[in-house]
Amino acid sequence: MDLLKERILRDARVIGDDIVKVGSFVNHMVDPVLMSLAGKEFARAFRGEGITKVLTVETSGIAIASFVALELGVPFIFAKKYSARNLDSDVYEAEIFSYTKNSGIIIRVSKDYLSRGDKVLIIDDFLANGQALLGLIKICTLAGAKVSGCGVLIEKAFQPGGEFIRSRGVRLESLAIISSIKNGDIIFK
Amino acid sequence: MDLLKERILRDARVIGDDIVKVGSFVNHMVDPVLMSLAGKEFARAFRGEGITKVLTVETSGIAIASFVALELGVPFIFAKKYSARNLDSDVYEAEIFSYTKNSGIIIRVSKDYLSRGDKVLIIDDFLANGQALLGLIKICTLAGAKVSGCGVLIEKAFQPGGEFIRSRGVRLESLAIISSIKNGDIIFK
Repeated sequence: MDLLKERILRDARVIGDDIVKVGSFVNHMVDPVLMSLAGKEFARAFRGEGITKVLTVETSGIAIASFVALELGVPFIFAKKYSARNLDSDVYEAEIFSYTKNSGIIIRVSKDYLSRGDKVLIIDDFLANGQALLGLIKICTLAGAKVSGCGVLIEKAFQPGGEFIRSRGVRLESLAIISSIKNGDIIFK
Repeated sequence: MDLLKERILRDARVIGDDIVKVGSFVNHMVDPVLMSLAGKEFARAFRGEGITKVLTVETSGIAIASFVALELGVPFIFAKKYSARNLDSDVYEAEIFSYTKNSGIIIRVSKDYLSRGDKVLIIDDFLANGQALLGLIKICTLAGAKVSGCGVLIEKAFQPGGEFIRSRGVRLESLAIISSIKNGDIIFK
């Protein structure tokens, strides 16, 4: 998605050889026009798959998931990372390691909202080590739901997540794939 | 918003005299059509205010904020509740008490994204005790930004948040106002 790549080149901040900060348009302040266009891209890519639910994990995937789900005409679910009194106790859960938080966390989806027969499109903002997507895939497996594919805004191809996902036979669409960062410059695949 | 009230009556689960669970269409599984219509409602209500930013707090306000911001043609910001390595250290912050989590939490917005000259529309899913909105108003005050108003999906008028907000002279638009819950029945104002 050229518009996304141009925006990354213009507004992302690179730290070291592996961190790309997109807080000014993706995961703290958010450009809703860009997210809406990304949503349309994912919807077009997966429209033939008979998707019944879009699944993401709080927080940064929610804006994109909102627009994908609207385009596909299905609900979306966000897995919860943080326990709260208002989450039902009857949940599917997966443990993932968060490199951002440097700790293991549990993600949960209520059993009420995902079940056998669902065809799920998993959405997230970043794919680096793949922990969030693998956790969401595990939750779908526990629910007996089919994972029809994964869509991410930005894949860092120099980290192993993309390979993990594709090697499991899961269709993965990334709107911008960063192959490397050299001397502060982002190189797209 | 009649469609929202009908949906609440149909799908919300009432627990005791004060808890209304809307996890099947607002804050765990989300109906993007309803959120999009809510976004249009808020955009229509505040279109004349020259809004420059929409502000919410993770997590449940993000879907609504996405659609409001798209309609108004401005970015939205979600305040962060959970510290992460990828948040800038230079932030505006406010402490709020979370009744859902039964503890005090800090919400933060990077100083890069909010400043004097901004006219802010604050969005959230629920208004009960008003802690989240008051925290977001405080952050706008710290930034020197003007709060042009607040929009919430569901206000529980039997809890004090709505009064707090209105008594401060802040314009508040609630798409569904629950005046009481009696014997498991939701009564709208």
